[in-house]
Amino acid sequence: MADETTAQDQDDSALRDAQRLLESESTDAGLTRLAALHPADQAHVLSQLDSELRAPLLSRISQPALAEIFEYLKDEPRHAVVDELATALLGPLLDQVDRDIAVDILHGLSPERAQQALAAMTSAPDIAPLLAHPDETAGGRMTTDYVAFQRDWTVEQALSYLRRTRPAAEQVFYLYVVDSEERLEGVVSLRQIVVAEPEERISTLMTPEVVSVLATADQEEAARRVQRYNFIALPVVDERQRLIGVVSIDDLMDVAEEEATEDMYRMAGLAERESLQRPVARSLLPRLGWLLVALVSVFAAAAVVDAFEGTIERAAALAVFMPVIAGLGGNAGVQTITLVVRSLALGNVELRDVRRVLLRELLIGVTNGVIFGLIVGLLIFAWKGNVGLSVVAGVAMLLNMTMAVTAGVLVPVSLRALRLDPALASGVLVTTFTDVLGFFFFLGLATLMIDRIA
Amino acid sequence: MADETTAQDQDDSALRDAQRLLESESTDAGLTRLAALHPADQAHVLSQLDSELRAPLLSRISQPALAEIFEYLKDEPRHAVVDELATALLGPLLDQVDRDIAVDILHGLSPERAQQALAAMTSAPDIAPLLAHPDETAGGRMTTDYVAFQRDWTVEQALSYLRRTRPAAEQVFYLYVVDSEERLEGVVSLRQIVVAEPEERISTLMTPEVVSVLATADQEEAARRVQRYNFIALPVVDERQRLIGVVSIDDLMDVAEEEATEDMYRMAGLAERESLQRPVARSLLPRLGWLLVALVSVFAAAAVVDAFEGTIERAAALAVFMPVIAGLGGNAGVQTITLVVRSLALGNVELRDVRRVLLRELLIGVTNGVIFGLIVGLLIFAWKGNVGLSVVAGVAMLLNMTMAVTAGVLVPVSLRALRLDPALASGVLVTTFTDVLGFFFFLGLATLMIDRIA
Repeated sequence: MADETTAQDQDDSALRDAQRLLESESTDAGLTRLAALHPADQAHVLSQLDSELRAPLLSRISQPALAEIFEYLKDEPRHAVVDELATALLGPLLDQVDRDIAVDILHGLSPERAQQALAAMTSAPDIAPLLAHPDETAGGRMTTDYVAFQRDWTVEQALSYLRRTRPAAEQVFYLYVVDSEERLEGVVSLRQIVVAEPEERISTLMTPEVVSVLATADQEEAARRVQRYNFIALPVVDERQRLIGVVSIDDLMDVAEEEATEDMYRMAGLAERESLQRPVARSLLPRLGWLLVALVSVFAAAAVVDAFEGTIERAAALAVFMPVIAGLGGNAGVQTITLVVRSLALGNVELRDVRRVLLRELLIGVTNGVIFGLIVGLLIFAWKGNVGLSVVAGVAMLLNMTMAVTAGVLVPVSLRALRLDPALASGVLVTTFTDVLGFFFFLGLATLMIDRIA
Repeated sequence: MADETTAQDQDDSALRDAQRLLESESTDAGLTRLAALHPADQAHVLSQLDSELRAPLLSRISQPALAEIFEYLKDEPRHAVVDELATALLGPLLDQVDRDIAVDILHGLSPERAQQALAAMTSAPDIAPLLAHPDETAGGRMTTDYVAFQRDWTVEQALSYLRRTRPAAEQVFYLYVVDSEERLEGVVSLRQIVVAEPEERISTLMTPEVVSVLATADQEEAARRVQRYNFIALPVVDERQRLIGVVSIDDLMDVAEEEATEDMYRMAGLAERESLQRPVARSLLPRLGWLLVALVSVFAAAAVVDAFEGTIERAAALAVFMPVIAGLGGNAGVQTITLVVRSLALGNVELRDVRRVLLRELLIGVTNGVIFGLIVGLLIFAWKGNVGLSVVAGVAMLLNMTMAVTAGVLVPVSLRALRLDPALASGVLVTTFTDVLGFFFFLGLATLMIDRIA
């Protein structure tokens, strides 16, 4: 990471200038600077502006310029910018952006606002069939602008077809071959066509086994597949293997990155679309909601301690070491749950691996439990010279670490089995668990051995 | 996520069969099934096998088949497989894989093993200059197999050059234009060449402003740039703007995914290359090391409680609510730190935004602190009927949440300012902080007001 700031510093100074001007009072100068940038850079600058600041600027950017910027905005800032746009501006804008982007934006709108925007669009009839595919599926992400050949065409026919139709850049890295009923039969790359003899048949050039993805498949599955095969685009088919669209790797790279961000945010109890550019008012409620869940869990831990208040009254030193038992258990549990959630997300483990994974993590958990049971016991003995307290703490440490890794495996795996997102198995759930159990083991054992402690 | 298991179930049954056989005693049948799969699928199956199981199988896969599999193995399993391979097999294998992959593998080896492997390679002279680029830079990830034209060529000359040289598939989506000193001057897409008139000059077709990346830039910077501009490849230049290689989006997508995984793992205190397929012995030490860090931090919290042992002796109910103050503070802190770490990683905020970000998070932290201070105070009053205890807990809650979000911003930002990875600002650091401060505020205030509590 060290070098990157330097490299970026040089290249991004024009961006930073534009941003600084837009954030100051000089919005006119800022907009002029902005317009001089590559649309991708304009998108980047706009993404970094606070929502309150950006909203009034949007109406001052020309419709075609804004449409170009939309091609480059990532999901989260794009949704934010759309929210800031007047509905009257939205319809004409959607007519100008790529269809897959228009569909994605329409999916993100409230039903009423989507209706209003569609009513104002001239391309509404072309968009309607695409809207049938749910958001976050391969069908919802695909573009229908692809190039398909018939297998009996010659290379010359294919080339003249391309020269005639002049397809846009992003669709012609792969050319798909379909039969008379539009069923996907093969794939050729543009490179193959260019270097082949003019009279050669497409059928002899094409790779007949094409990896495709069903339109109903999750967009994450499409991302995983394009990544596994090192492709740069993936054909999308319906349940009868008919080619109906293409998803390209640059969109799927965004998908993979968004999913990673979502998983991180879910595990921390943040809304999926949280960002530091979001208006505070919209961030507050989801975070507050999550803290209410945490509230229930910390009061559960409090209830456990409360049940042993009599024991603590006899030996206040127990309160000193409660955070040790709970804290180390929590850390061990977070290690396991993070590894399991991410491995499930990347498809590196599956449900049927649960036994092997549980045994593996238990082996680690018990080993660390023994080691840290001994360390904690010895440290407490060295500090307080209380044998009973040391033994109780050491045993509670072992038990809590063992339970922590068990929960770290079973919670996300159970969520996946219930077809829920394993990332909901967030840190707070596992630390609640280790707090409650840690206090229970520690204070429970202490109660049994209170005569040797107090 | 819900649909994806179904879609995958159908397509992946052949993979699962092969894996099941390899994991059972029927390795012969398993290897036969494996060989029938696409090399990308073979790579996926091998990635999912436990290291102990996989090592003896590798010598039974033919050299060319293994080389093909290596093109598709992701970073982490590739390193693991290389570790399992006999050094004698490694040299000839590296001769057969793409140069950028060979370089990546050599970078991951111990110096002695890299020397041995290089000595056994016939392509060592071609590889040596690439090895000069550090791992994890754009130069370390690039391939030198790219196509470059001169600006005064015609389209016809360019096409006949392509037909003569027949470049491999992955390099010809973009064709770069260089001057007589190899300086990057422009870019044309293969599509543009195909649809242009034969006598047209490359100089009139090309886009003159090419986004490139310095060879010394971090690979993450290259990934971020390819993603910002929706490119599928990025030219790599030296400090004199000379074209020296190309990084392609499929490699950069792997980079982005690995970096996300690394950040998640670092925040949880796992080794970067941790995986559920790793031998337990190799996972144990890094996790243990992290728990030792956590040990210091939980004993710091214990020391704070210890300082107030006299107060707890007078009011054991304080021990009951310690986990409430510390736990809710910890959750609020983890929310902020996760958002800040991820936003820094994605380039959505930068160091100069720190003031704005801190104010934003403080606004949220203080608001939530007031709300949860009131809720916690009221709940404790309802439960225990102790006004003093309720007031002390409520105020401590507000103070701790305020400090939690402050640490959540300042810790990762400071790490970035020190050119360290902000993801080192892991959960454990922020929860230690909220434990220590939470106990200090709560027990400190309780000590001042002990006559109203006990």
